[in-house]
Amino acid sequence: MKVRIFTPGPTPLPQEVKLSQARDIIHHRTPEFSEIFRKVCDGLKYVFQTKNDVLVFSSSGTGAMEAVIANLFSWGDEVLVVSGGKFGERWTEISKAFGLKVDTIDVDWGRAPDPLQIEKKLQENKKIKAVFTQLVETSTGVVYDVKGISSVVNKSSAVLVVDAISGLGAQTLFTDEWGVDVVVAGSQKGLMLPPGLSFVSLSTRAWQLVDNASLPRYYWDFKKARASLSRGQTPFTPSVSLICALEESLTLIREEGLANVINRHRIFAEAVRKAVSCLGLKIFGNPPSNAVTAISVPTGIDAEKLRKKMQDDFGIVIAGGQAHLSGKIVRIAHLGWMDKIDIIGVISALEMSLFQLGYGVELGKASKAAQEVITGNII
Amino acid sequence: MKVRIFTPGPTPLPQEVKLSQARDIIHHRTPEFSEIFRKVCDGLKYVFQTKNDVLVFSSSGTGAMEAVIANLFSWGDEVLVVSGGKFGERWTEISKAFGLKVDTIDVDWGRAPDPLQIEKKLQENKKIKAVFTQLVETSTGVVYDVKGISSVVNKSSAVLVVDAISGLGAQTLFTDEWGVDVVVAGSQKGLMLPPGLSFVSLSTRAWQLVDNASLPRYYWDFKKARASLSRGQTPFTPSVSLICALEESLTLIREEGLANVINRHRIFAEAVRKAVSCLGLKIFGNPPSNAVTAISVPTGIDAEKLRKKMQDDFGIVIAGGQAHLSGKIVRIAHLGWMDKIDIIGVISALEMSLFQLGYGVELGKASKAAQEVITGNII
Repeated sequence: MKVRIFTPGPTPLPQEVKLSQARDIIHHRTPEFSEIFRKVCDGLKYVFQTKNDVLVFSSSGTGAMEAVIANLFSWGDEVLVVSGGKFGERWTEISKAFGLKVDTIDVDWGRAPDPLQIEKKLQENKKIKAVFTQLVETSTGVVYDVKGISSVVNKSSAVLVVDAISGLGAQTLFTDEWGVDVVVAGSQKGLMLPPGLSFVSLSTRAWQLVDNASLPRYYWDFKKARASLSRGQTPFTPSVSLICALEESLTLIREEGLANVINRHRIFAEAVRKAVSCLGLKIFGNPPSNAVTAISVPTGIDAEKLRKKMQDDFGIVIAGGQAHLSGKIVRIAHLGWMDKIDIIGVISALEMSLFQLGYGVELGKASKAAQEVITGNII
Repeated sequence: MKVRIFTPGPTPLPQEVKLSQARDIIHHRTPEFSEIFRKVCDGLKYVFQTKNDVLVFSSSGTGAMEAVIANLFSWGDEVLVVSGGKFGERWTEISKAFGLKVDTIDVDWGRAPDPLQIEKKLQENKKIKAVFTQLVETSTGVVYDVKGISSVVNKSSAVLVVDAISGLGAQTLFTDEWGVDVVVAGSQKGLMLPPGLSFVSLSTRAWQLVDNASLPRYYWDFKKARASLSRGQTPFTPSVSLICALEESLTLIREEGLANVINRHRIFAEAVRKAVSCLGLKIFGNPPSNAVTAISVPTGIDAEKLRKKMQDDFGIVIAGGQAHLSGKIVRIAHLGWMDKIDIIGVISALEMSLFQLGYGVELGKASKAAQEVITGNII
């Protein structure tokens, strides 16, 4: 069966990425690897929109989140977490595991934080050393106003740490221009790679925290990573095959142009939302992201049955809800290596599945809506 | 140019492993992935020779070393490290980074520890909670007597933690039978994969330490990993492409049979040593491992020139010395996906390079010695 994945990570792999991993492995302590690694680090700066170094780790995105906490803080430090979904909660969980004192901005799942709430917290408690947030909260499909959050955090002495794991390459993120201190990303999303690499960029202000932080770290040591980077190396054996694959995907992003990549995500997200809405379904997240659309499943439709139908009959894999949203939403990712026909495909599978499950659907209507958005916007 | 790597990680990739990574990526929260992951975890138990769970992490081997320390210990715990090379030193460095009190058995680089020394230390200090060692110390090419070490550690209340990153699949390691509490491994050595996965097996005694350990951990959390394993899952997004590749390499190991795989390594190591000796060069490590042969470079020969010659003229990549051994030794790995002709190839390149560099070498003599070992032992 032809299987097509529309999950918010892993995302589909371009042919260049797949084939690069079928090549012979090269040794990492060689000029050949260093040349590739330097190119990759340059490309990452472009995607991160930063002049600062982007550090590369062999881990999932959660590893890089932990790395930030282990490198920037000391036991008992106070931090503020925007908690509006599963990945906001993850910041809290890691922070607590490392002995930080955590205050939260609790946001209803499916909504975004108001920067003014964050500003108020920072004014009330001057000891807060960092604000943690997402760019896109993957569990709810919501995009956060990182520019707005940054402008209030930058009035304080706290640093802003943004989990852009699902957002990078799908949403505008001007790391340096907006004054975002730390950006975390992963390989299996907008970067169109298999999972296994994670990335962290740090501002000068963030590096100052590293100098004074006393939490234990070794594998995640940012200073070691930065020192190795200057020699085109990593402190420990890197995931060579994934780094070679990243060279390929970064080339694709450069060729298309980052602004065009993001615009493509914006249009596809709009097409999916228009199509879903005309099926009478409700978009769960607001404001909705360019990366993943969360859809409320109406009474009478079993979310898991719907996903199973789409997969069994059409080979289309979408995601369900996480935690308390399990069974209540489904999530369609339009992230990474996606084209117009992919979007028509997932929408068609959705409407045909709903039709066959007995939900009153007029066949072709949703596809038409998606086509209207796609043809109205020349990519 | 045809490039052939004889480095102690990464090691060459079998075709099945390479091609598996060129396949479409699958989503990890699916029965399809769980089935592969369960198979892989079963295969790992076979290679580790244990009935206990083998946990899988997305990281380099060093990440798994750190994971062991973060999960088994509390600030101020006392541990004993066998320090006979760069990777023994790594145990010390990580332990210190995590606030452990470290005593060491200092072994001359190129030599192995005497289990009786360890026994004496454990008798003198009953507070030692763990002994850290290597199976193969990659930096010196020496194999340690893990069976002997285990028998003395098992008389105490300490657990034995073995870094088998370079040794697994090359040396006999009866984890359960010998009573080894913790075994750490990596993907890019005997398991014939690209770097990016690491593995940890734990005995019941080791799990008891986990229950009482208070060092901070989240990404490395062994309990979370064990709980997910029972559902055929990992707590965080796994390196899907590498796990699918591991399914392939474990199949190759099962087909050949672990004992045959290890015997093949033993014979190839012997062939390399015999060949090197008859060139008038000295084996640096004693007792020498099956995984990598460290060779003292005689006065008059520039180690880096020799490596460059082998690489430039013959496409053969070998490793140099690390730390203070830089320039003094070269290391030839015969680890992982190696066959008889590979061994003849690396030996021929070595003798031709030495010949052309003006070192008094009779062409063909070393190759003959290697052939004698290989033909005398039917694999």
